[in-house]
Amino acid sequence: MAGASSCSSSSSSDRTRIMMGVNESSLKGYPHASISSRGAFEWTLQKIVRNNTTGFKILLLHVQVPDEDGFNDVDSIFASPEDFREMKLRDKIRGLHLLEYFVGRCHQIGVPCEAWIKKGDPKEVICNEVKRAQPDLLVVGSRGLGPFQRVFVGTVSEFCVKHADCPVITIKRKADETPQDPVDD
Amino acid sequence: MAGASSCSSSSSSDRTRIMMGVNESSLKGYPHASISSRGAFEWTLQKIVRNNTTGFKILLLHVQVPDEDGFNDVDSIFASPEDFREMKLRDKIRGLHLLEYFVGRCHQIGVPCEAWIKKGDPKEVICNEVKRAQPDLLVVGSRGLGPFQRVFVGTVSEFCVKHADCPVITIKRKADETPQDPVDD
Repeated sequence: MAGASSCSSSSSSDRTRIMMGVNESSLKGYPHASISSRGAFEWTLQKIVRNNTTGFKILLLHVQVPDEDGFNDVDSIFASPEDFREMKLRDKIRGLHLLEYFVGRCHQIGVPCEAWIKKGDPKEVICNEVKRAQPDLLVVGSRGLGPFQRVFVGTVSEFCVKHADCPVITIKRKADETPQDPVDD
Repeated sequence: MAGASSCSSSSSSDRTRIMMGVNESSLKGYPHASISSRGAFEWTLQKIVRNNTTGFKILLLHVQVPDEDGFNDVDSIFASPEDFREMKLRDKIRGLHLLEYFVGRCHQIGVPCEAWIKKGDPKEVICNEVKRAQPDLLVVGSRGLGPFQRVFVGTVSEFCVKHADCPVITIKRKADETPQDPVDD
C-alpha cells in the first residue's frame, strides 16, 4: 500500500495522456466526425478533464482505412497514376479537416493536444500506436451494436479493450443519437 | 457543437461520479483487496482524479457471491441454523473490512466516497447498480486472461463493457503483478 501511494505522488506532476481514436462519419457529407467519436471526445473533456486542463494531454489519432474500392470518386476504373495521387491527397486533406475539429476544441478549452493520421486497419493501428506513444488511457467510441449487427461490422472497441497495452474506456453512443440504421455513425 | 459545449459547462459544477466494483483476493489470507481491484483503484486516483479532489466522487461496490459450497468453514454439512447465521455475519464483516481499505484511501486523499455491499452474480449486480446509481463512469479491473483461461473463469469486465449503461474503463492487471497462476488475483 505504502509503495502504491508513494508511486502515485512521485509521478503526479506528469500530465495524464489520453489517446483517442477518432473517425469520420459514415453518413454522407463533407468530413464530419462520427457521432461516437464526437460523443466520446466531449464526454472525456466534460467528465475526466473537467477544469483540470493542466493535468491532461489529449493525443488524437485518426486511422484511414486504405480504400479497396477507391474508384467511387473517379470516372473510370482505368485510372491514371495522377488519379491515385489525387485520391491520396484528397484523403489527406479530409483527414486533416477531421482532426482540425478536435484540435480546435482542445485549444478552445485550453488542454494541450497532439494529432496525427495513420493508414491501416483501425484496430491494429490503434493498438500499435498505444505501444509506441504509451498513453495512460485509450478512449474508444463504440456504436453499441447488438451481437447480430456486430458480426458484420466487427468492433474496434472490443479488440482494443483486449489488446491495447493500457486501460481503455469504451463509450457507447447514446440511444438518442443513434441514426435510423444503427450501423451508421 | 454549440449544444455540446454549452451542455458541458452547465453540468460542470457536478462531480464526476466514478463507480468501481471491488473484490477480495482469491489468494488465501484475511480479506485483502484483489490485485486487479487495488490496481484499478490506485490507477483511477492517480490518472483520473489527480489533484482535482473536488471534481470527483468514488462509489465503491463490493459484490459477494452467495457461497454455493459454503461448508468449507464448518465442521459438518449438517449445519444448524446458527451456523448459517454465523456464516452470513462473517461474510458481512469480511466485506466491510474490504471496503474499509478503499474508503480509508479515499479519506486519505480527500475524495468523497460511498461504499456498499450487494449479494449476487457480480456482472449482473454491477450492471443493475449502474442502472440504479447512474454513475458517469464504471471502472472494472480485469485479470487480462487469455482466451483459454477466460472460458473457465468468465469475465465480469467483458460483460460490463457490453451491458453497463455508462462508459466503462477496463484496467488490466500489470504483467509484473500477475501471480504464478494467472487465474489467481
